[in-house]
Order: sequence, then C-alpha cells, then structure tokens
Amino acid sequence: MRVLGIDPGLTRCGLGIVEGDIGRPLTLIAVGVVRTTPDLPIPQRLMQIEQGIELWLEEHRPDAVAVERVFARSDVSTIMGTAQASGLAMVAAARRGLPVALHTPSEVKAAVSGNGRADKAQVGAMVARLLRLTEVPKPADAADALALAITHIWRGGAQNRIEMAIAKAAAGRSR
Amino acid sequence: MRVLGIDPGLTRCGLGIVEGDIGRPLTLIAVGVVRTTPDLPIPQRLMQIEQGIELWLEEHRPDAVAVERVFARSDVSTIMGTAQASGLAMVAAARRGLPVALHTPSEVKAAVSGNGRADKAQVGAMVARLLRLTEVPKPADAADALALAITHIWRGGAQNRIEMAIAKAAAGRSR
Repeated sequence: MRVLGIDPGLTRCGLGIVEGDIGRPLTLIAVGVVRTTPDLPIPQRLMQIEQGIELWLEEHRPDAVAVERVFARSDVSTIMGTAQASGLAMVAAARRGLPVALHTPSEVKAAVSGNGRADKAQVGAMVARLLRLTEVPKPADAADALALAITHIWRGGAQNRIEMAIAKAAAGRSR
Repeated sequence: MRVLGIDPGLTRCGLGIVEGDIGRPLTLIAVGVVRTTPDLPIPQRLMQIEQGIELWLEEHRPDAVAVERVFARSDVSTIMGTAQASGLAMVAAARRGLPVALHTPSEVKAAVSGNGRADKAQVGAMVARLLRLTEVPKPADAADALALAITHIWRGGAQNRIEMAIAKAAAGRSR
C-alpha cells in the first residue's frame, strides 16, 4: 500500500509518500514541501498548493491519502490557511476516488513513537529510524507528512474502509 | 460587470450572481444554495461544494468572484468547514484566472444597508429592494451571497485590481 501523507499549511505544506504494509518494512518513496510566499494573494497561494498536491498524486499514484486533522482550537494566526489547505488536499484525493483519512496529531505521535505527547524531535527521529534514513527529514512539515503516511499504513486503512462504506450507503439512500 | 458572490459553508454554501455597475441598476441573474448532508464524509461533502461552484462558474461566466472573509474567531463548531469551503471557492476562481475578492461580513452589511451591524433581516430586505424582488431570497446564505456580489460591484473591484497587480509584480520578481 502506497500512502501520501499531507501536513497542510499555507506557507509550507508537507508531502510524504511511504510504501508498506502492517508488519512489513516501510519504504520512503518521496518527501518534500510545497512553499508559498506571503506576498501573493491567498487565492494564488492556495492554487499553488493545490497544483503541488495534484503533481504528487499524478506522479506517485498513491492508494490512499492521509491528512492531518485540523482543530479550531489550534494556533489562530495560521488556522485559516491550514484549514483551507487541508480542504484542498481532501478534495484533490476525493476527485480521484482515493480514500482519504484524517489523523489527529496525537494519533500520529502515538503511532510512530508510542507517545501521544512526543515532541517534533522525537517524531522526526522515529520517522528516520522507521524509514532507515541517515538524517531526519527537514523541515518538520516534511517529517510530519511521512509520520502521517506511516500512521495510515499501520492503522491498516480501517477507518477509510468504514467511511467509504458509509459514503456508499448514503449515496445509495439519496438516489 | 457580472459577479458571483459566495457565502461559504459546509452544510449550506450560498451562491448568487448579480450584474451591474457603480451608479447603475443591479440585476439578479441567479441565486441558490449548494447543500451537503452530514452523513457523508467531509472530503465527499467538500467535493460536492466544489462541483456546485464549478457548475455556476461554467454556466454563468462571472467576471469576478466575491467570497466572504472568514475569521478564526467565528463560530468554532462550523469554522473548519466554512474555511475549507472558502478555500475551494477561491481556488475554483483562481484556476480560471478570475479575480477573487474577500469582503468581511461588516463590509457587506455596511455596503448594502449603510450599517455595519445590520441584522440578517435588514440585509435580506435591502438585497430584495436593490434587486427589485418581491420576496427576500431564502435561506439567509442565498441572500448573503447576493449581498456579497452587490458589495463587490459597488466597491468597483478596486481591491481586485490592486491584488492582481501585486500578484503580477511578485510573479515577475520570483522568475
């Protein structure tokens, strides 16, 4: 299973592709960040993020997409851009019929490090270890995107299958 | 000038098309709401909103798009969906090269009613009067979308032209 993890953000949107299955070794396929500059209007910045995500979906053909779940109580100064980028990520995946799962930061920390309150450094170190990398991926957004993809693989996509089944049932009802 | 006003929301996204120019009568072209049901997963709901907006852009070919500016201090229970829908609206317009302007709720209230603290009923009544309608458009999201389009026409798209010039200059610099 090949998963694209997305750590949404307006200034830096982390992207990471990991391949693997439960109980089998994980492989890093690609990692990077889409950056946008604050001197552009928001619609143009959001469009650049969408284009970046589209490019990765096109090039790496993941089987599923895992996006960080954003909460309204998060940092107020960046929350709007983060929410908007996460919406674009979800729709880009949904448009291709790909399952999309949302994982909270604590779920991701718990999955990769065994501690839901792990700090950025611990998460980065575990991601590097799990993917057998000699260095921690930088910036933190890139490491977080990989951690999201790993979490998704380890959770076995069960959440996806449930949500897709619900969606299918709901679509059937509304017909 | 033909403007699509969008009042973003996950459950109800208001859309309204108004044609007119500063100092000339306004004409209602179309008004409606894209609704999504909470029993679908968020990615599917956001995709339906995007498809609704795309359909309106395709069918009504507006010259500009006006979206309500969402603030992080707004209602926490709906803020994430509202932010995500507003991001999709902005990107749908930007993808077509259309100017996008954001107007705050107080700017819209002040523009259509002369009072930045006008209530929903006052805004609806003024929208109906300005567009010579016999009834106030319902639901409130539809009336708000029309109020956004009217605000945009009356502001003469000046904000747009400034933002587009900045974007162009910035794009030139980064080349």
